[in-house]
Order: sequence, then C-alpha cells, then structure tokens
Amino acid sequence: MKKILNHPEAFADETIEGILLAHPHHLKRAPGTPRGLVRADAPVAGQVAIATGGGSGHIPVFLGYVGPGLLHGVSIGNVFSSPSVEAMVAVTKAIHAGTGVLYLYGNYGGDIMNFDMSAELCEAEGVEVKSVRVRDDVVSAPKSAAEKRRAVAGLFFAYKIAGAKAATGADLAAVTATAQRVVENTCSMGVALSPCTIPAVGKPTFTIGEDEMELGMGIHGEAGIERGRLKTADEIAQVMTERVLADLSFRSGDQVAVLVNGLGATPPEELYLLFRKAHQVLAGHGVQIQRVFIGEYATSMEMAGASISLLKLDAELLSLLDAPAYSPFLPQWRSAR
Amino acid sequence: MKKILNHPEAFADETIEGILLAHPHHLKRAPGTPRGLVRADAPVAGQVAIATGGGSGHIPVFLGYVGPGLLHGVSIGNVFSSPSVEAMVAVTKAIHAGTGVLYLYGNYGGDIMNFDMSAELCEAEGVEVKSVRVRDDVVSAPKSAAEKRRAVAGLFFAYKIAGAKAATGADLAAVTATAQRVVENTCSMGVALSPCTIPAVGKPTFTIGEDEMELGMGIHGEAGIERGRLKTADEIAQVMTERVLADLSFRSGDQVAVLVNGLGATPPEELYLLFRKAHQVLAGHGVQIQRVFIGEYATSMEMAGASISLLKLDAELLSLLDAPAYSPFLPQWRSAR
Repeated sequence: MKKILNHPEAFADETIEGILLAHPHHLKRAPGTPRGLVRADAPVAGQVAIATGGGSGHIPVFLGYVGPGLLHGVSIGNVFSSPSVEAMVAVTKAIHAGTGVLYLYGNYGGDIMNFDMSAELCEAEGVEVKSVRVRDDVVSAPKSAAEKRRAVAGLFFAYKIAGAKAATGADLAAVTATAQRVVENTCSMGVALSPCTIPAVGKPTFTIGEDEMELGMGIHGEAGIERGRLKTADEIAQVMTERVLADLSFRSGDQVAVLVNGLGATPPEELYLLFRKAHQVLAGHGVQIQRVFIGEYATSMEMAGASISLLKLDAELLSLLDAPAYSPFLPQWRSAR
Repeated sequence: MKKILNHPEAFADETIEGILLAHPHHLKRAPGTPRGLVRADAPVAGQVAIATGGGSGHIPVFLGYVGPGLLHGVSIGNVFSSPSVEAMVAVTKAIHAGTGVLYLYGNYGGDIMNFDMSAELCEAEGVEVKSVRVRDDVVSAPKSAAEKRRAVAGLFFAYKIAGAKAATGADLAAVTATAQRVVENTCSMGVALSPCTIPAVGKPTFTIGEDEMELGMGIHGEAGIERGRLKTADEIAQVMTERVLADLSFRSGDQVAVLVNGLGATPPEELYLLFRKAHQVLAGHGVQIQRVFIGEYATSMEMAGASISLLKLDAELLSLLDAPAYSPFLPQWRSAR
C-alpha cells in the first residue's frame, strides 16, 4: 500500500483534524461527536438545514459540500463506510434552526439504514426530517428500478442546487421537492482504469489488467457492465454520453449541465479529452450545453477513471446552479460558461 | 500505458480543444498559433500583461492560471516540453496593451531559451518585455546558487500575486518587482511515490519500488535528494516543512501562506494529513499561518506525491494574495482561512 498516512486506523480522524486546522473559519465540529462537521455559522437562522454523510475517501464528497450556499452539516464514516447514527443525530441537532432538516445523501444500504434511524430519533425529539437519496448511476439498475441505483458524481448537482434553494429561505417541502427534482433529472456513467486501496485493508479493492478498463464501475469499485480492452477517449465518452442521454430521454433543444468528474488519479487533461467528445455527441443530438463542470467533484482516493453526468435543466434549476456558494474543496465557478 | 486518450501525439492539441469548448467565455486562442491561449477579453487596457508558458501535463499549471486577476496569456508545449518561440510571440502580441509584458515562468532550460528569444523578437517590434523565473524547489540547488533551482508548485504564489498586482494598474517595473519579491520569499519541497507516463513516450518516467518514496523529486521526475523507505505522513511533512523553513530563514512571529500541493494521484485526504503535521511544525517555530491552500495547484499527470510550499508574507503580498481572481481550473478561495 503506497499512501501518505500515519496509522491506517487513524486516517479518517486525522484527515478531519487537518481540515479543521486548515479551515477554522469555515467548519466546526458538531458538539458530541468527533465525526460530524457543520458550517462554522451553524445553525443558520431562517434556513432549512441540509445534512449529508457517508464514508471517507471521496473528497470533495461529502464534507467538501458543506458551506455557504451549500449544505449545513456532514457525518463522516471510515473509508467507504457509513457514518454512525450518533454522528448523524449530533449533526442534525447542531444544524437545525427550527425549520426542519433535509437528509440528502447517496443511495447506499448502510447509509439508508443509519439515516433512517437518525431521522426517527430526531423526529422523536421534535425535529422534522425529510430524506432524498441521490441515485444517478445509470448502469447500477434499469430505469424501471431507478430507486435501486447507486449515487456517483451526480451528488454535486443535488448538493449545489438544494443548498441554493435552502439559502433562499424556502420551506422544507420546497427544498425537498427541488432536491428530488434534481435527482430525477440527473444521470451519470463512469469508467474505471485502476483500483484504490482502503488504508485499513491495505490491498486494492479489485484487480484489473494493464490493458483493461471497466465501464460502469461504482465509486467503491462496485462491478460495472463491461470489462474490456482500454478504449480511446472518444470511444469512452461516446458510450457514456449516449447511455446517459438515452436514460434521461433528452429531446433536441433541451438544456443541460455537464459534469466530467475525475475519480482521483486521472489528470484534468484526460477529462477535457472526454468533454471534447461529449460536446460533439450532445451537439449531434441538438442538446444545448448551458454549464460545464470539469474536475474532481467526487473521488475514490487514487482510483483512475472518470464519469460523465448530465443534469437536464429548467430555468429554476439553472438559476440555483448559478447561485453563489463557497467551499475551499470545490473548483471556482461562475454563471458564464 | 493506461490513459484516457486518443492519439498520444494529439494529446496536447485535443486537450486545448476540449478546454476551449468548455470555457469559451474565459479563454480564446492567440491569433496565429494553435498553442497559445489568452484571456477572452485580451488585450486588457490599462494593465501590464503577464504571459507564462510551459509543457502540457501540469494543469492547472500553466494555462489554468490565465484569467481575471491572474495572467493574461499562456503558450503551450507538448507534455513536459517547452512551447515554441512562435507561440510565445503570438501570445505576447495578443495580450500586449501598450504598457509592457512580463514573462513569468518556471526556471527550466528550454523555457528560458525560448522565452528569451521571444522577448528579443518582441522587443525588436517595440514591446517592452521583462522576465521573472520562478525557482522555488529547495533541493534542486543550494541557496547560494538559488538561480539554478527548478520551479515547482510555488508557481501558484507568483501567478496569483503578480496577476493581482497587474490588475491594480501598476507599471511594468512594479509588477516585475512584486513577482521577483514573491520568488525570493517562496520555497517548496516535494516527495514522489510513483511516476507518470508521457503519452508520446508510453512508459513511466522512472521506476520506484513498491515500498519506496523519493524526497525532493521534481515535477518532471527529476532526481531528488533521498530515495528510501516510504515514511509516515508526519515524518514526510516534518522533513519538508523544516527544510523549507530553514531555507527562508523564518523567525518567530513571521507570517506565512502555506500550500500543500498534490501531484495528481494523491488524494486530498492525504494532503490534509500533511498539513496537519506542517501546522504543528510551524506552530513549534512560532510562525503564524495566515492563509492555507490545499489541493492540486501544479500536477504531473498521474504521479503520486505532494509538496509543501511556504510564502513569507508581508502586508502587500497578503493583500494581493487575497485579491479577487477567477479561473475554472483553480479551487475557490477567499481571504478568511
């Protein structure tokens, strides 16, 4: 295992320590747990609070999406493991400003179980909680069973837009509905070229040949749909873009935001090669690219690979996507392409 | 070679195509060369123009630093190769607003030769040109021969601050002097854990054992000072921070900006582990951390490794570091830590 770390078991906690030392005006711990971080100004009066959470090893997912115009708090598990119910409850209480809390997170079994239990405990104490699960990975289940799909980099769109909606002062029902609308209009597909190693495990999550890639692999190394010879950037981008387009039933004239995400070890240069072809495919279908995000928005430590996500836009989603937001873990953006 | 690409020989040009498709309101080509990009609003009246340039494969270095509050243009070579004189001349002419041009770039032989030739050609046509070379890599030459040192991630500080100075409307002498002051107060040290592969070469730039690291390696795989067993994050951060501190002759009470840079495949989590220890070392010396930058600011494609850079601050440098700037290739920042 070739990693810059101290003790594998301390990886998540020491990462959190480093983050709090680096960004003391941005984040603080939720009282009562070492594994919960909230906005430094939490609770934020007049805003529905949004909590997320999940395993370590995916920065900027999950904790990188806490900040002004984004989310309010995050509970943090070990690498690729669900956070504890205790951390979720502590975060919920630390961010609740009296107007309810939305749990917005990836559609994974362990996270669902714990967030549901946390919701039950918090509701018993009078905190209204709603839940929206992001499930954008097109290959992880057919469209007819979309509620079984995994979350991948499409989390970005859900976090950015739900956070902007909450910042408008909208009520819990409206923030929840907006988040759900993003989920229903977001679709992603990925490709993996190499595995990563969970520090406490010490060996790669999977093996793959030197000339192979796997289409559709999940961000924890979940099986994809096709293991085969490494294809060209153009071939990869075409397959991924076409598959995502078909799933969202795009029509000529539809407007879209595009996210080309790097999983960790794949250089920005290669992401721009993928975008170059995706742009051509989208143009061929008459789909209008309104916004572009290219970089590392959801990682799997040192895994090599990338994904393409599309969000079908309407006027409100575009406006919320453009709204100001700040996190030191995210690339700069502004409304103009 | 495991990369997402089409033809290795087309790598740099196709990357540029993808970038122009993604960010058409941000960058445009300099007339007369496929390998020069300038700000979409270039030339910018009333500003000294700053040009940089260098090989591909280091994004956000070099082209990611062109933008409002940053640089005005960039010439682009093949992976790890110097740009052509023709591209440099074309960029210079496209950004020159009548008040002179600063060449601000990394201290590498091929780049120096070409930038010097470009300066000569442009001066012959009446464009005043000054040059400042960034040379922050502490291990690449002793302090007594600092003009021989290589550039690494410290380029970030020079670009950010010189760009902010130019945006104030300062004249060429003042922008040059500020850039030079950043160079003299910036020092970096890196560590590499794995090599990268230049697409047109097709094999790794060097080999290194599964349990080895190399301290002080350059961003093109230049030899460092010590090849040895992989150390812990704390040990690595301590060695790097102490070495850089000693070189800049810090005193208790001095103020500093810290950059922990990832070379490509090293996850953000590991960078925060390094910062955690660097923070402790700096506190032990009584050095005050004013600003923190952690992420990928200068990469070597898929190389695993990291560096720590320090900039000794004064009031003007801090103010310029905090000035607004925009590039979609860079993380968000704001003045508060």
